[in-house]
Amino acid sequence: MYRKLLFKRALYAANGCRGLVYCASQRGNISKSVILSPISFYSNSASVPFTADTYSSKVQRDPKYKTLEPSDIEFFKTILPETSLVTNQDDLDFYNEDWMRKYKGQSKLVLKPKTSQQISKILKYCNEKKLAVVPQGGNTGLVGGSTPIFDEIIISLSSMNNIREFDPTSGILKVDAGVILETADQFLAEQGYIFPLDLGAKGSCQIGGNVACNAGGLRLLKYGSLHGSVLGLEAVLPDGTVFDSMHSLRKDNTGYDLKQLFIGSEGTLGIITGVSVLCPSRPQASNVAFLAVKDYETVIKVFNECKKELSEILSAFEFMDLKSQQLTQQYLKADQQPIQSGEYPFYVLIETSGSNKEHDDEKLETFLGNAMENGLVEDGIIAQDESQIQSLWAWRESIPEASTMNGGVYKYDVSIPLKDLYGLVEAANARLAEANLVDFDNKDKPVVSAIGYGHIGDGNLHLNVCVREYSKKIEQVLEPFVYQWISDKKGSISAEHGLGFQKKNYIGYSKNEQEIKLIKEIKNHFDPNGIMNPYKYV
Amino acid sequence: MYRKLLFKRALYAANGCRGLVYCASQRGNISKSVILSPISFYSNSASVPFTADTYSSKVQRDPKYKTLEPSDIEFFKTILPETSLVTNQDDLDFYNEDWMRKYKGQSKLVLKPKTSQQISKILKYCNEKKLAVVPQGGNTGLVGGSTPIFDEIIISLSSMNNIREFDPTSGILKVDAGVILETADQFLAEQGYIFPLDLGAKGSCQIGGNVACNAGGLRLLKYGSLHGSVLGLEAVLPDGTVFDSMHSLRKDNTGYDLKQLFIGSEGTLGIITGVSVLCPSRPQASNVAFLAVKDYETVIKVFNECKKELSEILSAFEFMDLKSQQLTQQYLKADQQPIQSGEYPFYVLIETSGSNKEHDDEKLETFLGNAMENGLVEDGIIAQDESQIQSLWAWRESIPEASTMNGGVYKYDVSIPLKDLYGLVEAANARLAEANLVDFDNKDKPVVSAIGYGHIGDGNLHLNVCVREYSKKIEQVLEPFVYQWISDKKGSISAEHGLGFQKKNYIGYSKNEQEIKLIKEIKNHFDPNGIMNPYKYV
Repeated sequence: MYRKLLFKRALYAANGCRGLVYCASQRGNISKSVILSPISFYSNSASVPFTADTYSSKVQRDPKYKTLEPSDIEFFKTILPETSLVTNQDDLDFYNEDWMRKYKGQSKLVLKPKTSQQISKILKYCNEKKLAVVPQGGNTGLVGGSTPIFDEIIISLSSMNNIREFDPTSGILKVDAGVILETADQFLAEQGYIFPLDLGAKGSCQIGGNVACNAGGLRLLKYGSLHGSVLGLEAVLPDGTVFDSMHSLRKDNTGYDLKQLFIGSEGTLGIITGVSVLCPSRPQASNVAFLAVKDYETVIKVFNECKKELSEILSAFEFMDLKSQQLTQQYLKADQQPIQSGEYPFYVLIETSGSNKEHDDEKLETFLGNAMENGLVEDGIIAQDESQIQSLWAWRESIPEASTMNGGVYKYDVSIPLKDLYGLVEAANARLAEANLVDFDNKDKPVVSAIGYGHIGDGNLHLNVCVREYSKKIEQVLEPFVYQWISDKKGSISAEHGLGFQKKNYIGYSKNEQEIKLIKEIKNHFDPNGIMNPYKYV
Repeated sequence: MYRKLLFKRALYAANGCRGLVYCASQRGNISKSVILSPISFYSNSASVPFTADTYSSKVQRDPKYKTLEPSDIEFFKTILPETSLVTNQDDLDFYNEDWMRKYKGQSKLVLKPKTSQQISKILKYCNEKKLAVVPQGGNTGLVGGSTPIFDEIIISLSSMNNIREFDPTSGILKVDAGVILETADQFLAEQGYIFPLDLGAKGSCQIGGNVACNAGGLRLLKYGSLHGSVLGLEAVLPDGTVFDSMHSLRKDNTGYDLKQLFIGSEGTLGIITGVSVLCPSRPQASNVAFLAVKDYETVIKVFNECKKELSEILSAFEFMDLKSQQLTQQYLKADQQPIQSGEYPFYVLIETSGSNKEHDDEKLETFLGNAMENGLVEDGIIAQDESQIQSLWAWRESIPEASTMNGGVYKYDVSIPLKDLYGLVEAANARLAEANLVDFDNKDKPVVSAIGYGHIGDGNLHLNVCVREYSKKIEQVLEPFVYQWISDKKGSISAEHGLGFQKKNYIGYSKNEQEIKLIKEIKNHFDPNGIMNPYKYV
């Protein structure tokens, strides 16, 4: 039983919350299920079409790149043992396809090096021969950044997965790029520390890939971005240079902070092979509250109060609209939603993390009591134990899968100044209705609904357009409409998922000409032959 | 009266702490006094020698730069009103000299633009004519980075000082580069927010300069580095391009994060003209404890315990050695040190900042009680009110001035892995003793002592070699010895003060060849004519 808030308004008589226990611990499994059975999530099609075919009008193979020949493979065998080369077609599919089954490349070769020196030799050769490459971590990206478009060689980091060292005084961890995020976090848990990044795919994603994509995740609100917590990097540049910048100092003002360029570069400047990261002490206590709110404006008010009153213990502030929860309820096959007194337009999940459970609970309860009294919150519950914490998180973390269960989803991960943030969901629904494409219940319409949820604390909205089928028509109604809308509000068309292949041509909606010019100059400086992850990013 | 810790060991009977009230509120004035009467701090000489003379063997004027002519001044008068040009020799001195009175340039012209467009026109002209320039903020730097070496034109940002906008929901502040740090913080205080950077020079330093130097300061431990909190920048590039990247989004993964290159670039890539920064909620409660510790090893143990138990409310963990406190006592003309039961080898200042005073005090007292009981702390006091908090901070923040009162100081601001950090102070004293140069009491010796203090939480040591006079001999004993020692321990020769002129030739002790090569390439890419802050950095 969750503990019900002590309502000061008689309307909400205390009642329990059942029906959630079945999804306890589900959270930890999400990432695994995503990887083990991707077919159910994003596409119903049995086989994934080649990206090059789907987007043939948008992208052609650049003839400047050499085509792989047997002599190239023979060369790679002088660097790597034969077991580190994948050339079998069935095995290649695993690396060529993304987990959404939306993108599929045609690579004939995957290399799985174990050391930076091996990667150095590989890239030097590829650069000289003009063989294009795609670095690949856990392949959990959402914008088609980690799979080839044509026949690029895939360089998988999955065999480079040692924890290099950890300093229990400073909390500084050094790892190979291929270490799984959850593996690192479990290691840190034993030392009383926590990895300053958490996201749904933690069981599969790799730290090198996280850094290459500047992953944001669920607790950026508390631990800040990787631009602050990554202290050092090792990367192999396209010409084979091993750029060793694996520093472990919190302060170091000696020259430009070049590692920052690699954070969020999506494999276009070089291959990240090692990461040095500052890890905070693991919180001794956590709690989660789940609240019902009457409108979006009030969600913002609750957030403002929350920042003031919970301040240093506030570790997540997530919001979800009603339709996202209705779909999640169907997906979880739950009898009831967490809050059982009725359905409300918006829900908020608040997580606290601190060093003293008693203090944290008192702060949370005081905050919620005030919020109820001031009419900011319509109803709410507080988790009573770890399994309830996980159950409540499941109602937030299952939304991505719930979004796809009717057939597919168009995903937009965007930043918008808070006051306008939910306006995009309303605008998308209005536009889809105008085009007569959307109905939540009527299965004859191709679109179920546009739903909105995400990290209010970071100004990060996930707009998911849940569809019964993918179609050019829907895509044309949504794009570039969505990007233009974001641009008008001075938002970002990619908050945390990156540009990859999906958004390559849309960067102009978030960055101006000068910025794009400088980005292209930097790319050209580091990778003059353009062998690194081509056809993507900018 | 400070509240004495309730000692569980009978040895430390409760006694009060007097003699500190005189320095209450001194903290707020330090930065002002530094600026108003710099002569007393770093040098006793009446006039400051030209840097070009002092270091004539190290640096010569590069003839590629044009010498200022009357026609140039006429041109600048078409851009700026005459009052924004400084050409009078007396007035020029103010901008040519640094506040330590260690460095002095020979500029004949200071320009004080009010807009980015004016700076754009100025730089475009200077770039075409090859007129070298030095951007200058509050001129509070410690490595000679903000004053000219020869006749470079000074571009002062002090007239560009508007707060542009503030969003009370997100806490995002946008300011002109010339806004004084304290001014911004006072503005934020009224809104319930705090600037995520605090340092002694806050009353004079400017935010643009802070960002250009990647200032670290006192509360980096809690709020992280500017690489995390700066969300956007506006900068004018050497060719006059206004690089507008004033974003206000916490998450934005669209392209390389180019603004990061400017953070810590010390005016060598362009002139920062605007800053967008994420500000945290202002803590509702603060407290400070001042502790005596028996040795350096125990300082680290106290820090480890502190991180665990105070976790999210720990906002500063500063350490000071005994000699630093003896000098500070002389400087403050205090009868007694804060802890009156005797003198101890090390002192620690712990600050907490949180949202609930009662909770924070309880945490601090529990922590201190345990630390006493476990024998980690020899004695200690807790501030009872704001003036005592400021008094205790004065014992930490007055050390830089106390260091110089015997004549001068050689300052080394360095990062070293924690276990080795204080070893540098011991090594420096041993080396000075070996050269027969040092005696704390004997005025015939040129060196008083090497002392150590700093931000343990950031691995940041301030090694100050307090001298009775500057001499080539002392400098030769210390350098490159100190830099080599740091390099051997994989530290940084500049934690937060930057490279500037002082450390230009020493970057190789902290960065490897590949890193330096890339840094130079980036510099050359942005500033091919080398007009930006020459003779410095790399």
